[in-house]
Order: sequence, then structure tokens, then C-alpha cells
Amino acid sequence: MKVAFLGLGAIGAPMARHLASRYTLSVWNRTAERAVEFARATGSRAAASPADAVRGATLAVTCLPTSREVEQLLEGPEGMLAAFDAGATLVDCTSGDPATSRRIAERLAARGVGFVDAPVSGGVSGAVKGILTIMCGGDESAMQRARPVLEAFGEKIVHCGPVGAGHAVKAVNQALLGIHIWSLSEGLVALEKAGVSTATALDVINASSGRSNTSMNLFPERVMTRAFPRTFRLALMDKDVRIAADFAREHGVPSPLLQLASELLREARRELGEEADHVETVKVLEAWAGVQVGQKA
Amino acid sequence: MKVAFLGLGAIGAPMARHLASRYTLSVWNRTAERAVEFARATGSRAAASPADAVRGATLAVTCLPTSREVEQLLEGPEGMLAAFDAGATLVDCTSGDPATSRRIAERLAARGVGFVDAPVSGGVSGAVKGILTIMCGGDESAMQRARPVLEAFGEKIVHCGPVGAGHAVKAVNQALLGIHIWSLSEGLVALEKAGVSTATALDVINASSGRSNTSMNLFPERVMTRAFPRTFRLALMDKDVRIAADFAREHGVPSPLLQLASELLREARRELGEEADHVETVKVLEAWAGVQVGQKA
Amino acid sequence: MKVAFLGLGAIGAPMARHLASRYTLSVWNRTAERAVEFARATGSRAAASPADAVRGATLAVTCLPTSREVEQLLEGPEGMLAAFDAGATLVDCTSGDPATSRRIAERLAARGVGFVDAPVSGGVSGAVKGILTIMCGGDESAMQRARPVLEAFGEKIVHCGPVGAGHAVKAVNQALLGIHIWSLSEGLVALEKAGVSTATALDVINASSGRSNTSMNLFPERVMTRAFPRTFRLALMDKDVRIAADFAREHGVPSPLLQLASELLREARRELGEEADHVETVKVLEAWAGVQVGQKA
Amino acid sequence: MKVAFLGLGAIGAPMARHLASRYTLSVWNRTAERAVEFARATGSRAAASPADAVRGATLAVTCLPTSREVEQLLEGPEGMLAAFDAGATLVDCTSGDPATSRRIAERLAARGVGFVDAPVSGGVSGAVKGILTIMCGGDESAMQRARPVLEAFGEKIVHCGPVGAGHAVKAVNQALLGIHIWSLSEGLVALEKAGVSTATALDVINASSGRSNTSMNLFPERVMTRAFPRTFRLALMDKDVRIAADFAREHGVPSPLLQLASELLREARRELGEEADHVETVKVLEAWAGVQVGQKA
Repeated sequence: MKVAFLGLGAIGAPMARHLASRYTLSVWNRTAERAVEFARATGSRAAASPADAVRGATLAVTCLPTSREVEQLLEGPEGMLAAFDAGATLVDCTSGDPATSRRIAERLAARGVGFVDAPVSGGVSGAVKGILTIMCGGDESAMQRARPVLEAFGEKIVHCGPVGAGHAVKAVNQALLGIHIWSLSEGLVALEKAGVSTATALDVINASSGRSNTSMNLFPERVMTRAFPRTFRLALMDKDVRIAADFAREHGVPSPLLQLASELLREARRELGEEADHVETVKVLEAWAGVQVGQKA
Repeated sequence: MKVAFLGLGAIGAPMARHLASRYTLSVWNRTAERAVEFARATGSRAAASPADAVRGATLAVTCLPTSREVEQLLEGPEGMLAAFDAGATLVDCTSGDPATSRRIAERLAARGVGFVDAPVSGGVSGAVKGILTIMCGGDESAMQRARPVLEAFGEKIVHCGPVGAGHAVKAVNQALLGIHIWSLSEGLVALEKAGVSTATALDVINASSGRSNTSMNLFPERVMTRAFPRTFRLALMDKDVRIAADFAREHGVPSPLLQLASELLREARRELGEEADHVETVKVLEAWAGVQVGQKA
Repeated sequence: MKVAFLGLGAIGAPMARHLASRYTLSVWNRTAERAVEFARATGSRAAASPADAVRGATLAVTCLPTSREVEQLLEGPEGMLAAFDAGATLVDCTSGDPATSRRIAERLAARGVGFVDAPVSGGVSGAVKGILTIMCGGDESAMQRARPVLEAFGEKIVHCGPVGAGHAVKAVNQALLGIHIWSLSEGLVALEKAGVSTATALDVINASSGRSNTSMNLFPERVMTRAFPRTFRLALMDKDVRIAADFAREHGVPSPLLQLASELLREARRELGEEADHVETVKVLEAWAGVQVGQKA
Repeated sequence: MKVAFLGLGAIGAPMARHLASRYTLSVWNRTAERAVEFARATGSRAAASPADAVRGATLAVTCLPTSREVEQLLEGPEGMLAAFDAGATLVDCTSGDPATSRRIAERLAARGVGFVDAPVSGGVSGAVKGILTIMCGGDESAMQRARPVLEAFGEKIVHCGPVGAGHAVKAVNQALLGIHIWSLSEGLVALEKAGVSTATALDVINASSGRSNTSMNLFPERVMTRAFPRTFRLALMDKDVRIAADFAREHGVPSPLLQLASELLREARRELGEEADHVETVKVLEAWAGVQVGQKA
């Protein structure tokens, strides 16, 4: 079976590596050298264009920064749209947005091509180990065609609903993450400023009802230690939170907290820059208040 | 050693019961019959007034709705303030506010009486079993006097900082709880409205970075089942969140998310009434959006 | 010169009437009877379809609920797009959104047809008298072609910038209106609840720095009198505010106040219904707080 | 008749000057030299302490930064409280807060002294010309005693309601001002960023429903010209907006927009510093978005 993979980024490359050992794989990447190098290392084929990559493939996987890039790869004489065989399936592992995905799915459907949105969570290490969680949206038949391929790099593959559902669930998860980070930052900064030991406060919260993955793992390991490893960029989290905010609005759901959080995280991103890690968000509140969490013993 | 306990409510009564078996206990309650009954059942003494309760006591414990009630019990000829022996200590287990507590502590200090704010978490069952978590604020010497008494009903007793620190930490925990409930509600309601299975979404979130005590325990057990047991009133959570919001402002800490959450939870309380459980907050978002979480299989 | 007019609603009909007396006019309306009646009364021609209306016209004017309807009129065998002569101009008086307008303009440009977005303000009476203010977006040459036609019903015709600029300026104006109404409501409701005469307060504000069109005209005439005439639907204002909110986000501009206002007005619309006037928004705050502005003498 | 004036700041001094020519005036100021100089220039008497100033006076006027300073002048052996004659009246022209004013009024009432809160608007020039607008709170009899004295520097003297009403009305006015500045900034910055002429947009808005004192006067004169004269400090406006926010909460009135605006203006103050003018707030949004309003012709 022929498979195509487009987008050999930090997380895409290890995902594609799992496919190279199982399928006849064509790869494409915007920076062509990466594809050439990857092909040489894995015995796959570097395609000259998106069209060249997907031509004759039963299934293509995309893993790009945003849905806009996916849509752009469809277009033009060298785009995927014209080159797909009828009956093929596009599986989009981008952390994209539901509205664009529905538009993409419609255009593909008009040519007899299936679509599944399938954003992943688990980071680079999850991709390397092939144990990603994958949130999928699409109809049952497309899911059936996508599942064996997704199992090459995913451990938990969840069908969430129609096209866009995968992106929506991922975006909501990221929005909760962003809100948890921002609100815990507000709370701890206020406690620090009042002379309360925030290490103690964090202990108490983690034994109480206000605890979260953010308070139990991220803050003790990254904020209290001031380690701030760069594992997931704030810029990407901000993008995802905005997707969730737009998604809620698109469906007419009141979401004042989510909308405000999206504004605040956008401002944090502006202040901290494109390379900052998502947990560094706390530094914005620290700067605004003029204290640093964890100083008060 | 003589101890006084004022405020035999749902959580105060089981706390006082632990003290009755260890100390010579005087109890007082606004509705006097409750105190009389409690005294009869436990072999303690029903006091005629706050002054009568604390006169001669080494340590007094208050457990009242808000700090305002504690302050009122200080006042007047039958109030605690005039009746305390110098050297006594007031331990306030109310979920109160830091600013009022500091005022109370100052007035007590002027008469040689110590003060510890010591709000609890763990609910009625934690009080009955004597395994509450207790967040304390006060100076070291007052803490030393309070600790043995607190150990009668507390398992984890944490000294968080100066007077008010206990109330502040508790309030921040509750604010996080409130924000987690509201934001998860926004997210799940939007997913439901978009035709996504929220049961599946909750599963995925609980395996991902956006998980919290709220998503892992409260929503699966109470929202997805529509059980909504009434274990902790929204009215009380709302009061606590407002305390956190005021606390952040008092210390000049920017807290847009917390301030907005406090407004939203106040409105939820108005819509759902004084008896609603805190997790029922999701119903406000459901009503606003015209869907019910968990309907889409 | 042949002109087409599509959308004979409350405000479109009187606008079209000004054109009927000056140009050879074809009119189209979704409910065909309206077009037939209008044509009979004004000596214009009722077109059978959007294509029929614009065929051979030098200039077409649309006045529809949202940009989505305008876009839909382009499509299909009976749509405007295929029927326009090269060199024609579409002038869209809809209170639409900049992003859709840019998309429409691109599609028209590909066929040699110009586009101007030209939303109006001044209400039905301004349309009848032909004294509307018209905010325009488009290139200079399209503006030159549009201006003589716009002068038939507009008094103040302002070229604000490129395609979408007219819609953007209108949306920002509406957003300010919505924010003024909501914030004045919050303030007056709080004063009323505190036992302050809101009539007096309004007088003072109107002599001070916080005054606005809303405080000087809308509230004295409509709220204090409880007259609440239905001149402009909240549903339409809400739609416009959401356009402004999306516009700010599209351009990466932080806009926390605007985003929150959009959420609040959406909720007000849900509570008050589709027919409520925009100034009735104050009733939501009154209901939430349990008072009515203007009761305290 | 003997009158006292405490607080000879930028606005207090010209107010006091109007009193010096009509009454036997004692003045007090924290920095004593100012009082001595003022007394020499106006033929009034420089008092040695607040007590000295009000002793024997029928009426005292305070004009201080916040209500907290007024409350502090009451205290101690050299404070006003002990020195006032029964039957005297304190008129507080501070832009203070209703809650503190009610507390002050109660303490004064216990000694037979009346109280009126009477914040002013009209700026230094209004004070010099004696044409201030004065918003008053207090009972009818205190108002009657205050009015003749207030007429020395006020043109429009309005009795708004019970004690605190003057402060509340002033605070709400300032909150509207702050919200108008912030929201117009969001809107114009977005338009500028989208390539729309903001000068034109401002013209259109000022002919439309979204106009306000801010859009008609402040922005054309100060922002579009980049003149930014320093006439009223952002720090003071921010203080007033926070008073309004606390006031709304104290009375249980939902006020999400006001609460968020207060957070944003506090952050603007932190970024721009204590000396910035209130209209400079627009610079925060400009910096966040990376554009300057008024650049696009």
C-alpha cells in the first residue's frame, strides 16, 4: 500500500518514520532538503511536489503548522487536490481548526476523496515512541481506512465525531490548559505578593479541589524550580486557544472566559516572544505584579 | 484545658464533637437549641453567649458563614472580645477573608489574645472522620498553641504564612475550582453543540494536558450522570471566589480572569439559587446554549 | 444608465425609491411579491432572478441582512457573478463583514467587476429623506463610479479605505454603541440599587466627561421614560459588534473589552429575543440586579 | 462664619481661595509651608493641625487624594473628630469612595457632626473660575448647610442621594470615561492596523451613534494631534474606576465590563506610570498592536 506524508517537522518526522517501515512511503516537505535527507535515511521516496507525493497513494498524512497550510497544499497544478485518486483518504494530523477542515473535506468529497482530522497529543517523545493520543473527526468509513495507519504512531485513537471534531476536542483541551496556567498564575502571584509561601500553597491546592495537571505537574517541575524547559511553544498553545474560542463562537455558545483567556494569552505571546514555552506565561503576571512566585519560603 | 467552640453548623458540629472527647468544652450557637442538644449528646456545656463560651477558655474555635459573623461575635457586652483572658487564642475555621481577619487579629492583639485563621477543606465527611486539611495563617507562637487542638479534626495542617494566609490560600483554591468548572462547561457545551461526543471528549481531555480534578472526578461522576449531588453549595463557592478576587485586588495583582470568573459565578448563583450545588454551574451554560452535555453518544 | 437594486427591506426599499426616479432600475427581492409591488409603484422593473437584475446594469446595489446573503446571490446559474458585464460595479450597502467583502471583491475582480462596500447609518427615516451617512471601502475608481448613485440617498459619503473599510468602520461604531449601552446600564443599575437618583446621575454625567450619545439621547428618551421604541434591533447590533470583534482579532489587535462586550450582548439577545430593541439591553442588567433604573426619585 | 479647608493641592488651593474672600478661613495642609504661604497670600490663618483647623468652625472642607486620607485626619489627639463642635458639618470634596464615606459619616454623626460627600468635576480651570460641577451625597439638612459654601466655587451643585451618593456618581462617570477611552482605542487601533484612515473613521463615528465626549473632544484634540496634554492623571482615573467597580460589587450588581475595564486600566497605569495623562491609555493598545493611530491618511 502506498502512503504519502507531508510535513516533516519536529513531530511529523518521527511520525513518518513509523510509516516508512510499514508502507511504500512518499514524503514531501516545504524545505526540500529535509525530505531528501529523510528519504535517504528511511528508504522512502522524496516527492517533488504535493501532487507528486499523493499521486497513486491510498492514504496521505499531513502534519503542518495550521489548517491554512493544509488548504494551500490542495491548490494549483502541483497541489494535492488534482492528484488524488478517487477513493483515497487524507488524514490531517495538523492542530488545525474545524471550520477550515470542513471546507477541505467538502472539496475533497467532491472528488471522491475522504478526510479525517486527526490532531495528536503526546509531544515529540510520544511521536518517537509511537504512543500518541490521536483525536479524530470524520465519517465511519474514512475512520476505518485511517485507523491502521494511525496505529503506526498512536496508542490511543479516539473517534470524537464528524469532520472537525478531532480539531475541536484538541483545541478545547489546549484552551483548558491555557486557562489553568493563567488562572493559577494569577492566584499564586497574588499569594506571593501577600507574603504567603506559594510552595506551601501549591501543596495545599494539590491536596484540594482546585488541583489540575497544571498545578500538580507543570508548576512544581517548571515554575517553582525556575527550570522552564521549552517543550511546547506558547505561540502554538495560543493558536490552539484561539481555535477553541472561534469554535465556541461559531456554534453560538457563550464563552466569556474562553474569549478573555484567548486575548490574555495572545498578549502574553506578544510579550514573551515566539520561542517562549507555554508555562512561561506565568512570567507575564509576575512582571505585571513585580514579584516572582516561589521566593517566599 | 478549657476550649470553646462557636458555630455548630453542618461542618462545625462534627469538628466540635472531636473536641468534646478531649477537652472541657463550651459550645455556643446562634440557634440556642442546637447548642443545648449538642451539649447533652456530648457532655459539653451550652454557653449562654459568646462571652460565656470563651470566658476562662485557653482556646476558642469559630466556624461561621463569613468573617463578618466572626467580627460580630467579638462585639458588645456579650461578645468574645471583652471576655477573653489575656493569653488566649482564637482559631477561626470560617472560610473567611484575609482583610477582615487582619482587622480581627489586631483587635485581639490589643487585648493580648492570639489569632489563627484556619479554614478547612474535606467537607462534612472529612470533618466526621477528623481528616480535614487545614490552611493556617498566623504567627508561629499562635500556631503552636492552635496545632494540638486542630489535630483533633485535621490530618494535614499547613502553616501558610501570616494572619489571613489561610483564608487566602483557601480562597485561591476555590477560585481555581470555580474557574475549572466554568471553563470546562464552556468547552463541553460548545463540543456538544457541534455534535461531538462529550463523553469521548472528556476521556481524551483526561488523558491530556487540560485535565483537572474537575474534569477527572466532578464531571464524570456528577455531570455525565446528571446526578448532581448537593455536596457544596454554589453560593459558598461564589463567596470564596469573590474573596479571592478582592484579595488579588487588595494586593494590586492584575487578575482579569479571576475578576471575570467571579462575576460569572455570581450570575450563575443568581440563576440557580442559594441551594444549588457548585457543579450545577454547568446548567447555566447549557441553558444559555440550549443543549445538555452528554446527550450526543 | 441601468441600475439594479437587490434587497427591498425596511431600509433598502426607500433607498431604491430614490434610484427609481433617476435611473432605469431593475429590482429583485427574495420574496418576489415585494419586488413586483415596488416595481408597479415606482415604474421600475421586477427582475426574475439576481442574474436577470444585474444583466446589462452598469451598477448594482445590494442591501441584505449579512454578507453571507450577498455571497449567496453571486452563485449559481441565476446568480449575479455570471451575469455581470465586465466593467460593472457592485455597491454593497449591507452591514456586512470585511473578510467576506474582500472575498466577494476578489471573485468579482476576476471577472472585471468592481466592488464597494457601503454600509449606511441614519435609519429608515434617513433612507426616506435621502440623508444617510455612507461609509465606503474600495479602490478609487470604483468609488468614483459608485458616488453619483450613492448621492441619490446619501448626504455624507465617506471613503474610509480599501475594500472592507466601510464595513469595518460601521462595525466599530456599532461596537462603541453597544459598549456604551452596556456600561451605562451597569453604572446606573448600581446607582439605582444604592438608592441614588439615576435621573440626577444621568444629568450629572451628561454635564461631565463620561457623556456619550447613549447617555445624552438614548437613555433620557427611551430608558428613563420606559418608552423603549423599537427602532433598531438588538439582534442586528449584536451581529455588528461580533463583526467588529472578529475584525479586531483578524488583524491581531488585542481587544479584551470588545470581545467581552460581544459575549455579553449575545447573551442579552438570547434573553430578550430577536425583536428587542438595542436599548432594551439595560433590562438584562435590571433583571440580574433586581431593580429598575429611574425608580428612585 | 468660621470655615476650615484641609488639602491645598492643585485643585484644593483655588477652591479654598474662593472661600478666603467670603469667610474667616483656617487652612491646613500636610506640607505645612503650603498652608503658611496660602494663608499669607489670602489673609487666612494657617492651622497647626487638623484639630486646630476645625476647632470652632461651622463647616470644614476636605480635598484629599483618597477617602483613606480623610479618615486618617479624623484620628488621634490632633485629628478632626475630637475637635469638631457638635452641629458642625464636614464637606468632603475628595474623589473618595462611598463605603469609607459612610463609615466616616457614622463616626461624625455619633458626635453630632454632619457629613456631605461632594466630589467635583471641571478640573483646575473650573476650580479657578469657581464653576465646578459638584456631586453631593448626604441628608437634606447637611446639604442645606453645605450649599452656600459650595456655591463659592461650584456652578452646578447636585444632590444625588444619601451619604456616598456623590462619590458613587463621580466614580461611575469616571468609569464611563475610562471605558470609552479604552474601547475607542481598541477600535481605532484595529482600523489603523487594517489600513483604514482613523481620522476619517473618527469623523464618521462622530456623526453616528457611537459618538461620545471621548470621540468628539479628547481623541481629535489629543490623540490625532499627538499633543497628549497632561490635564488629568491616569492614576487618578484608575483609582476612580476601581471605586466604581468596588461600588457595583458592594451592591451586588453584575458588572463584568466595569470589572474588566478596571483591570485593564490598572495595567495601563502600570505600563505608563503615575504621571501619564488618562488619554495616553491609547498608547498601551498602540504598543500591543504595533501601530499608531492617525498614521494612515
